[in-house]
Amino acid sequence: MTEEKNVSKVILPEPTLRRLPWYLAYVNLLHAQNVEYVSSTQISKEINVDSSQIAKDLSFLNIKGKTRIGYEVSTLVSELANFLGFKEVHNAFMIGVGSLGGALIQDSGLSQYGLNIVAGFDINKEIIGASICNVPIFSIDDLGARQKEMNTEIGILAVPVEHAQEAADLMIESGLKAIWNFTPFRIKAPEHIVIQNTSIYAHLAVMYNRMQENGRN
Amino acid sequence: MTEEKNVSKVILPEPTLRRLPWYLAYVNLLHAQNVEYVSSTQISKEINVDSSQIAKDLSFLNIKGKTRIGYEVSTLVSELANFLGFKEVHNAFMIGVGSLGGALIQDSGLSQYGLNIVAGFDINKEIIGASICNVPIFSIDDLGARQKEMNTEIGILAVPVEHAQEAADLMIESGLKAIWNFTPFRIKAPEHIVIQNTSIYAHLAVMYNRMQENGRN
Repeated sequence: MTEEKNVSKVILPEPTLRRLPWYLAYVNLLHAQNVEYVSSTQISKEINVDSSQIAKDLSFLNIKGKTRIGYEVSTLVSELANFLGFKEVHNAFMIGVGSLGGALIQDSGLSQYGLNIVAGFDINKEIIGASICNVPIFSIDDLGARQKEMNTEIGILAVPVEHAQEAADLMIESGLKAIWNFTPFRIKAPEHIVIQNTSIYAHLAVMYNRMQENGRN
Repeated sequence: MTEEKNVSKVILPEPTLRRLPWYLAYVNLLHAQNVEYVSSTQISKEINVDSSQIAKDLSFLNIKGKTRIGYEVSTLVSELANFLGFKEVHNAFMIGVGSLGGALIQDSGLSQYGLNIVAGFDINKEIIGASICNVPIFSIDDLGARQKEMNTEIGILAVPVEHAQEAADLMIESGLKAIWNFTPFRIKAPEHIVIQNTSIYAHLAVMYNRMQENGRN
């Protein structure tokens, strides 16, 4: 067990982890255009991130740029995708198959980033037993049994805010290890559970405020 | 014009703007439970944000807590929702009605936060002329004309990454003032355009990495 610690990947600061997908999106474009090499200065110009920051971010990866030529685009693409976990398949459960949950199941983009939604769970009897895009919807009561059966570690939380904590507790009890929280509620969980908050509605507030600011200038 | 500057709302730091919706989600719950007052200490316990930070964040609003009693819940709910712009109706266009764009149109949650998607735009002839949840889909060529007609300021960008910049340029040219960017591409835009990046896929990378970290402990 101690040995594994040295073998596994590096743990990155979150800001770096959030920037790496931007670089990937850009070098993917270059790759499609058959560009062979790219420098951090070039990425910097396109992405609006300081080039020394980019070099530092990329230093976490197993890739070296050549002086005056830069990084090999194809290697950068595969190293980034690999490093970010987008090439592995991560099974996930959707908890709450309402409007947002149903929409996320239909978004095939997620599977391109390694997320494979294998089942949905809800309390609504009208949709239990049905399926969306071949993803079966089960009763929330079956969560524990299905987790053992399907060996899933990730749960996507998309229930109404008033049930967020209760559903999260059930997810943890059922053996899920990570909660991708789409509700605006700050759920509480033991430290060994990974919580990723993605409240798209909170971003709306930021956008509205910035629009007001601009409207006044 | 200079007068207006003093009258309008305060411009907040982004971290505050991102925390306020968490408070709103929590006090909404209290409101549903007929709780009358709440202190920043109580919110702090539930939300895991320092209580002095909460008091500071709430000081931007037009609301005062009472010593030893706290804030009136119903006032806090309405002041927060109002302040965050969730009570106004903001018309928006969906640019790119593929998997994610179509899914977002179907998410009725957005309208609860003041976002009203009035039309979608795409290049795919098979969906142009159709509608999703009563939202009509037009050709991207009609963007400028429809913007003038429908007086819309917000465009939601959900096209494939390789068309992100091109679509953004078109949105700006058509008169849109804010771009809610769901692609992982860092688009470039003049300073007077508001850009809000929400790359849900980048959050996946953070979650995968944290899961690896936990797996090693």
